[in-house]
Amino acid sequence: MAHAYLGYRGDDGNTEYGGFFDPQMAALPAHVVDALHHGPQAEPVLLRLDSAATLLGDGYHETENGYGRLANGAFQVSVRTDMPGVTPQMWDWWFGWHGSDTRRYKLWHPRAHASARWADGGGDGHYVGRISLIEEYLGSAYAKAAIRFIDPAAMGLDVNPGDSVSVCARLGSSEVPVDIGWFVHQVRSTSAGAEMRSRFWMGGPYVGIRHGNLLANTVIRPVAARQLPDPRDLLVHCAQEMNHLAGFLPALHARFG
Amino acid sequence: MAHAYLGYRGDDGNTEYGGFFDPQMAALPAHVVDALHHGPQAEPVLLRLDSAATLLGDGYHETENGYGRLANGAFQVSVRTDMPGVTPQMWDWWFGWHGSDTRRYKLWHPRAHASARWADGGGDGHYVGRISLIEEYLGSAYAKAAIRFIDPAAMGLDVNPGDSVSVCARLGSSEVPVDIGWFVHQVRSTSAGAEMRSRFWMGGPYVGIRHGNLLANTVIRPVAARQLPDPRDLLVHCAQEMNHLAGFLPALHARFG
Repeated sequence: MAHAYLGYRGDDGNTEYGGFFDPQMAALPAHVVDALHHGPQAEPVLLRLDSAATLLGDGYHETENGYGRLANGAFQVSVRTDMPGVTPQMWDWWFGWHGSDTRRYKLWHPRAHASARWADGGGDGHYVGRISLIEEYLGSAYAKAAIRFIDPAAMGLDVNPGDSVSVCARLGSSEVPVDIGWFVHQVRSTSAGAEMRSRFWMGGPYVGIRHGNLLANTVIRPVAARQLPDPRDLLVHCAQEMNHLAGFLPALHARFG
Repeated sequence: MAHAYLGYRGDDGNTEYGGFFDPQMAALPAHVVDALHHGPQAEPVLLRLDSAATLLGDGYHETENGYGRLANGAFQVSVRTDMPGVTPQMWDWWFGWHGSDTRRYKLWHPRAHASARWADGGGDGHYVGRISLIEEYLGSAYAKAAIRFIDPAAMGLDVNPGDSVSVCARLGSSEVPVDIGWFVHQVRSTSAGAEMRSRFWMGGPYVGIRHGNLLANTVIRPVAARQLPDPRDLLVHCAQEMNHLAGFLPALHARFG
């Protein structure tokens, strides 16, 4: 595979969807800026991994936007993205569509996404049970990640009310057999379109060697902890990419979905 | 030399220009606040030192306001200052005028500038090839710095299009013979006046002992790295001082230029 790089070069834009590549990203929404200003939150107002299924309830969590440290040593990040004109199904389509081509993946975050392919080498159509191998910047740090999309049932999110969609994954490295966290993007309908509620849990007990044993875990955790992104950078990155794509997802989906 | 201090005391204000000292500084421009919110950026969207000459091109860089870590370990900071009513030549004059008197230097950043003199002990009129010895706060950290203004040609900025001005310098310590970075302030005309595009590169390979050897460099770099300012503090400081002075530079220049 050729060396990964940011942005479109040469004839990268010569695809049917190339016109959707827009290096100009919008400013952060005010509620995200508020969350950054507030800084780390108290653990009891953060979402625990074993409470992920509370995303299925009506209303909102105590912290819809924010981050902080859990008592178990992990950090947790939450962020909401308002998506007028978008439906949850469009995101379900996007997750099955973007991962087979770097040029698609770059539409999502033109200032941070460098490479994407499926570990199985396959093409479009579905994502649950597959591993997306990506390269991207989180802040100034370059990450080579393996995102294993899992059945939402594993996080208690199998019963999706209405037409909501929950995209769930185990997040780890693509270079060493180490996982570092979990995330879910729940997308549910609103009167204006849809809203995405993203939740990340990283570090602490969520670090583990794939197929490893307890001893290996004990050794690897301190090393992996130094590889974790800054929660703030993760919050900014997620807010940027979700807002950016939401701006043209309806048009993209209408044409290719 | 008397102990340096912030602000005007006693009869410091009894100069022809003393009336321009204004301890009240404006709020940060919205585009600077956005950059602070976004946090560190991916290396490929930051400006490399060996690409400084791209400042001569039309238009803007991918990151006009922002900061981040380069792959070589240095950090890079960029910030734009809009200056209605200002001309590039006013800044050229300012850099030759302010460095001979602490009371002039303090006009620029009344909350952070403590002392300024030329290493050659001389007076007004020019700055390229001279070393400005200053004391200032960057964030809460107090720095005693030696700013050696260099010929813009050394950074590939000798051919300035139109009436633009590039102020280039090697930045280091005034206490030990160690340099820690480079900067350039490019000022170019706009329809409303001028805009300054500031670029800093600090740390990593840009740390070096003056007239030193490789061994000394190897020893000093880890030490110097701990003396570097926070990129965020540097961005704020630069935005504050440039916006502040731009507010009265036309009047100051009309009277003393």
